[in-house]
Amino acid sequence: MAKELKELTSRSENYSGWYQDLVIKAELAENSAVRGCMVIKPYGYAIWEKMQRILDDMFKETGHVNAYFPLLIPKSFLSKEAQHVEGFAKECAVVTHYRLKNDPNGGGVVVDPAAKLDEELIIRPTSETIIWNTYRNWIHSYRDLPILINQWANVMRWEMRTRLFLRTAEFLWQEGHTAHATREEAEAETVKMQEVYAVFAEKYMAMPVIKGIKSESERFAGAENTYTIEAMMQDGKALQAGTTHFLGQNFGKAFDVTFIDREGKTDYAWATSWGVSTRLVGALIMCHSDDNGLVLPPLLAPIQVVIIPIYRSVEQLEQIGEKISGIVSRLKAMGISVKYDDADNKKPGWKFAEYELKGVPVRLAMGGRDLENNTIEVMRRDKLEKETRACDGIEEYVRDLLGDIQRNIYRKAYDFRASHTVSVDTYEEFKERIEEGLFIMAHWDGTAETEERIKNETKATIRCIPLEGDETPGNCMVTGKTSARRVLFARAY
Amino acid sequence: MAKELKELTSRSENYSGWYQDLVIKAELAENSAVRGCMVIKPYGYAIWEKMQRILDDMFKETGHVNAYFPLLIPKSFLSKEAQHVEGFAKECAVVTHYRLKNDPNGGGVVVDPAAKLDEELIIRPTSETIIWNTYRNWIHSYRDLPILINQWANVMRWEMRTRLFLRTAEFLWQEGHTAHATREEAEAETVKMQEVYAVFAEKYMAMPVIKGIKSESERFAGAENTYTIEAMMQDGKALQAGTTHFLGQNFGKAFDVTFIDREGKTDYAWATSWGVSTRLVGALIMCHSDDNGLVLPPLLAPIQVVIIPIYRSVEQLEQIGEKISGIVSRLKAMGISVKYDDADNKKPGWKFAEYELKGVPVRLAMGGRDLENNTIEVMRRDKLEKETRACDGIEEYVRDLLGDIQRNIYRKAYDFRASHTVSVDTYEEFKERIEEGLFIMAHWDGTAETEERIKNETKATIRCIPLEGDETPGNCMVTGKTSARRVLFARAY
Repeated sequence: MAKELKELTSRSENYSGWYQDLVIKAELAENSAVRGCMVIKPYGYAIWEKMQRILDDMFKETGHVNAYFPLLIPKSFLSKEAQHVEGFAKECAVVTHYRLKNDPNGGGVVVDPAAKLDEELIIRPTSETIIWNTYRNWIHSYRDLPILINQWANVMRWEMRTRLFLRTAEFLWQEGHTAHATREEAEAETVKMQEVYAVFAEKYMAMPVIKGIKSESERFAGAENTYTIEAMMQDGKALQAGTTHFLGQNFGKAFDVTFIDREGKTDYAWATSWGVSTRLVGALIMCHSDDNGLVLPPLLAPIQVVIIPIYRSVEQLEQIGEKISGIVSRLKAMGISVKYDDADNKKPGWKFAEYELKGVPVRLAMGGRDLENNTIEVMRRDKLEKETRACDGIEEYVRDLLGDIQRNIYRKAYDFRASHTVSVDTYEEFKERIEEGLFIMAHWDGTAETEERIKNETKATIRCIPLEGDETPGNCMVTGKTSARRVLFARAY
Repeated sequence: MAKELKELTSRSENYSGWYQDLVIKAELAENSAVRGCMVIKPYGYAIWEKMQRILDDMFKETGHVNAYFPLLIPKSFLSKEAQHVEGFAKECAVVTHYRLKNDPNGGGVVVDPAAKLDEELIIRPTSETIIWNTYRNWIHSYRDLPILINQWANVMRWEMRTRLFLRTAEFLWQEGHTAHATREEAEAETVKMQEVYAVFAEKYMAMPVIKGIKSESERFAGAENTYTIEAMMQDGKALQAGTTHFLGQNFGKAFDVTFIDREGKTDYAWATSWGVSTRLVGALIMCHSDDNGLVLPPLLAPIQVVIIPIYRSVEQLEQIGEKISGIVSRLKAMGISVKYDDADNKKPGWKFAEYELKGVPVRLAMGGRDLENNTIEVMRRDKLEKETRACDGIEEYVRDLLGDIQRNIYRKAYDFRASHTVSVDTYEEFKERIEEGLFIMAHWDGTAETEERIKNETKATIRCIPLEGDETPGNCMVTGKTSARRVLFARAY
């Protein structure tokens, strides 16, 4: 059983097979009966809940409040912002009827043709349109601004090729939608929320990210500027982990949202939107996990410490249980989530493999000899290292160990990215090296044509124009034209 | 301005107009551009968030975990459980296409006829079918049971007549879906969750409820038994605040969910489901509020204490602010949510009216004389009573006052219900008294025919067969046939 559980495809063998295998075997999610839609299982959902709670607190600390807008959007709303409809109309679920009826031929239920909607409704792929249509009635004066609202919701995009967490037809996310009196304030909000996302990724997910702005072709449909955080997965591919959009006055104009400013003049409101989704669970898995299963950062692990008794008799189990109960309550008092697994229908070896697979950061085990010696075995999941320690002071040791694990997996991911990032000056070299699975810093002439050519010829895209790092100008590796600075290229999820 | 804000329709004048007015003016919710769907505004959503957090903790304490299942349900799933489809097929949003395209005639976007789904998908009105279709793969042995899962989600029922919070096409809710090895265990779960709902309603919402079971005609479509908690609103009408369903093996059989029991025999799994929704926000408003606005129980109020400075000069405002900052931090340290509103573009009178309308339980106000005397004015929203108290020890006083308000509004609602509940023995008297807006305890012969007749003739329904209270047998007020006990009749939301 233990063996069967651990039989994951290895990363080197087939990275994408490993990912799919791990998501299923660690019971994070599975495909559903509805094409492209997943079932998020309790263990996977528990990770998402931890992310939600932390992000929600961060949004509230930066002055945002939550609200809820309708799931369905009138079809005509999509057409109001020209770029937006281009980006989203192609892949959306359309509600055309509002009733079923019994099949007169006895074949279950059929759509009732009499219940056809006058105007079709779209399941939201994102909510700018319905929200800005609402804001029109909320905004009249600069005194009504800013509006700093976030929504936790499900959205739907009819993706053709889906992958659990990374790309699904329905996904869960948060979408911030803010309205401002000035361009400067809206731009500052966009940058601020990018920073919130970066802090979340690095501090909690232990996933280093590169902050940058998107090239014009990679922008959100309807945005004047898109800010992104980009992370490297273990196959060297990039994953866009969160984006924030400066929408200018595009939605203000499309939905006629005007206000009287301080000088008494009428102007359109300025907008931003920003979101992260259940995709982050996929990023978390791909960033840290190994061939034995998940590796979770302690700050997001649903169970931080698991304790397993190894016993020969009911009496011994009772003695161990007694000893452990003190440790459990002291760990809990420190705010650490602990599970004592004394289920008697599973062997310790099976449990060890199970919690390794599930990525529990610290495993404690106590057997008969430990009981005699007042010791306990400590295993850290990130390095798979074991040691035996005295029970006295074990709680403080475990607390510090959790901190060390959090730092270590961040450092490991950081070093991995550093050793897989190169600067390249010729397109020849670029084409060769992109095959290795790297982040490549290269010069680009700033045109959509060159970008498109590189994408077609190498499958690599401009992930972002970094906000930090080397800003030396140079010449485009493809056309030789001038380039303001190196940009980040990679293949991406 | 203060006057305009407070101009609510009064309850005696028009109860339902008062409710609608209050929801809008207190900025809890508003109608959206999509028929029957509401926008939940930040203040209304903050109340729902408080409810969610408390309920979620209660579910977890009783051993449940959260998960997430798809929004869309294949049409054929609905037909698998005969009663279920009868109950839900009539009012559901149907997705028939998955793409829009540019209108060749230039009229925005139109549905792409080439993107028609082979099988239509329904936006979940409730998730028993998709969840039990999933459980089939999760359940094989009694060792896989019980499954104790809850989901926080949006659902959609195409209601013809909608009312903010109380009945909307889309609403937010939680739905628990559990699977068990035995009938007894599933029944115990159904009763346990009814009790969780009752505790939530009474302890947190300060809303007394009557626990009971539904008559056959009022059962959930597909249930063998429905348990309910029923609350009285201020117009004497009943509001069903939460239901838990014992589903027997209906869904186990419909979706072929079998397991090997302890004796090695194959059996169908036993099911329950249970849910409460954003309807509870409506119940909360209608249960306690008055002609001046919302009255919120402190345990669910987004802001528990508001503090307003009354000043003649900037210097005085600074002095008051200094004094208040100590009170604010001591209240916060006690876990009390406080807002110090020193905005200078609104007058104190306007603020007083605003926070009264918003139902903030305690208002503190400090002016120049208070500053001199080291006093502060305290107003409790439930009784609209003011007093001036010394600043020393004010934090403990406010903490105790919040507890007192919570108890007082529960007591008030309890007494109101007691004085509006009567026992009636003849149908003649029943028809007269039901017009007064009462809960009526009366004998009923247990048949659907009599129930239907009463409903048609009086608009009153059997809210429940109470689990507690007078169990004396008698004779049906309509037919004179024997009746096991009095049941609860009322008109209902």
